[in-house]
Amino acid sequence: MRFTDLLAAANPFAAITTVDAHCDLFCGVYYPEQARIEAESVKNCSVKYHDSDDDVFRARCISIKEERAELVKHHLNVLWTDYFKPPHVAEYPQLHDLFWRATKAAGDAKKTMDVQAGDDLLALIDEISVIFWATKGGKPAWLTS
Amino acid sequence: MRFTDLLAAANPFAAITTVDAHCDLFCGVYYPEQARIEAESVKNCSVKYHDSDDDVFRARCISIKEERAELVKHHLNVLWTDYFKPPHVAEYPQLHDLFWRATKAAGDAKKTMDVQAGDDLLALIDEISVIFWATKGGKPAWLTS
Amino acid sequence: MRFTDLLAAANPFAAITTVDAHCDLFCGVYYPEQARIEAESVKNCSVKYHDSDDDVFRARCISIKEERAELVKHHLNVLWTDYFKPPHVAEYPQLHDLFWRATKAAGDAKKTMDVQAGDDLLALIDEISVIFWATKGGKPAWLTS
Amino acid sequence: MRFTDLLAAANPFAAITTVDAHCDLFCGVYYPEQARIEAESVKNCSVKYHDSDDDVFRARCISIKEERAELVKHHLNVLWTDYFKPPHVAEYPQLHDLFWRATKAAGDAKKTMDVQAGDDLLALIDEISVIFWATKGGKPAWLTS
Amino acid sequence: MRFTDLLAAANPFAAITTVDAHCDLFCGVYYPEQARIEAESVKNCSVKYHDSDDDVFRARCISIKEERAELVKHHLNVLWTDYFKPPHVAEYPQLHDLFWRATKAAGDAKKTMDVQAGDDLLALIDEISVIFWATKGGKPAWLTS
Amino acid sequence: MRFTDLLAAANPFAAITTVDAHCDLFCGVYYPEQARIEAESVKNCSVKYHDSDDDVFRARCISIKEERAELVKHHLNVLWTDYFKPPHVAEYPQLHDLFWRATKAAGDAKKTMDVQAGDDLLALIDEISVIFWATKGGKPAWLTS
Repeated sequence: MRFTDLLAAANPFAAITTVDAHCDLFCGVYYPEQARIEAESVKNCSVKYHDSDDDVFRARCISIKEERAELVKHHLNVLWTDYFKPPHVAEYPQLHDLFWRATKAAGDAKKTMDVQAGDDLLALIDEISVIFWATKGGKPAWLTS
Repeated sequence: MRFTDLLAAANPFAAITTVDAHCDLFCGVYYPEQARIEAESVKNCSVKYHDSDDDVFRARCISIKEERAELVKHHLNVLWTDYFKPPHVAEYPQLHDLFWRATKAAGDAKKTMDVQAGDDLLALIDEISVIFWATKGGKPAWLTS
Repeated sequence: MRFTDLLAAANPFAAITTVDAHCDLFCGVYYPEQARIEAESVKNCSVKYHDSDDDVFRARCISIKEERAELVKHHLNVLWTDYFKPPHVAEYPQLHDLFWRATKAAGDAKKTMDVQAGDDLLALIDEISVIFWATKGGKPAWLTS
Repeated sequence: MRFTDLLAAANPFAAITTVDAHCDLFCGVYYPEQARIEAESVKNCSVKYHDSDDDVFRARCISIKEERAELVKHHLNVLWTDYFKPPHVAEYPQLHDLFWRATKAAGDAKKTMDVQAGDDLLALIDEISVIFWATKGGKPAWLTS
Repeated sequence: MRFTDLLAAANPFAAITTVDAHCDLFCGVYYPEQARIEAESVKNCSVKYHDSDDDVFRARCISIKEERAELVKHHLNVLWTDYFKPPHVAEYPQLHDLFWRATKAAGDAKKTMDVQAGDDLLALIDEISVIFWATKGGKPAWLTS
Repeated sequence: MRFTDLLAAANPFAAITTVDAHCDLFCGVYYPEQARIEAESVKNCSVKYHDSDDDVFRARCISIKEERAELVKHHLNVLWTDYFKPPHVAEYPQLHDLFWRATKAAGDAKKTMDVQAGDDLLALIDEISVIFWATKGGKPAWLTS
């Protein structure tokens, strides 16, 4: 059984679209960058919070961070359950635990204004990103150029 | 180290609220019933779709099912990353994979009007529910009475 | 005229799906438990607020309570206008006022950190729940078992 | 007891803001026009649906109408439970039933492409609007000029 | 080329609906009043904030203002890109800059509890409203009566 | 007056955070990649639509495209009114019109399944991206590496 057949078997989209040797043709649009960008906002909310002594500004930092961390969780969940397929998990056995810790890190970042929580979250998303782009064979030119 | 200490160590809420031997005092409000109720809607959208030959009604079945399946995914993700802690995963090593398959089943149920997809989703949520209520020591009276 | 005919007359879904003697076949999926669960979160936000002296945590209690109370209002509104039909109102003449007070109680619970506001909200939802399950002839087994 | 005292007693905002003889000073911002505008969209989606034979356009009419009708329900619910107070209900005993029928009409308008459903919804919102503006003593100049 | 032809050329809806001399027949439902109403909430949140010394109430003023200002931005963006067409911009060359400043004013109003920020926002929306209703040939009777 | 002073004058955040010669210190987190990624989804929905003859799949392509195009509009609006400041507009006088056409292109892409509409949208976002990264002095390493 070829790798693409394995993916097709695991992916309901495969039944309704043309399948060939390139994952991109039926996987849709997934970018760990979406989670990463929101995680930068999460971190920045904590940085700016400590740079300010304005009560209104600080209250906004707390609530905007909450919202952005929720978006991180959403983007991570999409990657984990929509993009990744059983063959990926077979190749990267740490995948489930990595996503679990990253999503928990997003939740933890809601609960504190400690900048370290944002850095921890970014580091975990970067680990996911390395795996993701390895499975895709590299980033597209529009992103890197 | 006691079980509650382990939980406390894993849960940032624990640092800011009173911790005692009962998980409920600091875990917040979690119910797999939330995912289950939306999954019933998912299934019913497929059932009703096949019972109707009205084009407008059928279009609404497709889009309402989409929305409800998305809510299932959200509720499952909250349970997986907010409620469950490392000691739970140690006790139920199938937990990550079970949530992954359940969330994927919610995604699959978006892609088809086959009633079986709704039944599969319900069955996986029920598996999660059994584990969840075991960790809580049973359902509260308001739910069962 | 039979009771189910009355319901069918009042319910546009009835025109497009098979109608028989069991309400569930065309009523869709309604559970007062959805409002109740969010109302527990509302109450817990106030409880935890008073248990903490961390400013960031307390700010989060206020905003999460706001969001959860809004969800309570939404779930109550769905029950009131989607599930309940004229024959129900004829049988339970207090229904409109009960929903009005419950929804107002959700609004009131946004405005205070008094735990009593959460308890008042829960009590009103429980009143609605008793009526709801009476009209359904009892809870399903999956909920109570 | 003066009328404003009655309102103040019923309205938690009253405890925290200056109360005088004019309701507007503590009622916040409410406009039945918000529901009316979305209801116009609801109606127009049905009108345009029948003017077109493009499948994609018609599918969009169905889903946009669904979304707009949901917004009508939301705006009506806000008016009913946030703006209106017990003295209003005493003066307009039809208020609960009127809102119930209007919100149901929004739900009915989701289920059909019949333009009449949009007209029925608009007529019920206009009935609410007449009562609303009577309780406010007239529309503000910015709206009518 | 007639004015309506220009509008039709610029508006994809024009290709799928009947076009005649009145813009309303294909422009859909647009009202600057939607932005104005949310902007009143924005202003009122600041007014009420200063009238209160209750920490919970003030925290809610900040977050509700944030949410309402976001809705203002959304409604302005819909007007700017969905309603206004190239011939409008030709006639009102200040349009782009006016919308830019109004949307920025909504963003600015998030960042301060200064009531002036709400007044500035309202003034810019009123400028847009004058242009909008000029292009429509006047407000409909339901709004002004 | 230095460039950063101009930016600071135009940006309310500048008053509350440390300002130095690098825009990033007070501009927050902005990436045109967010709009671009959603625009890829918009285009792919049209591509997949034509590759399929499954009615349910095609209905989902229409509604998912609608949702993704709305996200494109949101991300573009954030860039236009939150990131870009008067000095940027002075340097790039086409900026307002470019954003207007890009946002309209997102609206147009909702209305058709023509793949060209997705390509047009992507091209306009790329134009914005070139300007954006020029104002930032280049992409960060995490994006390009």
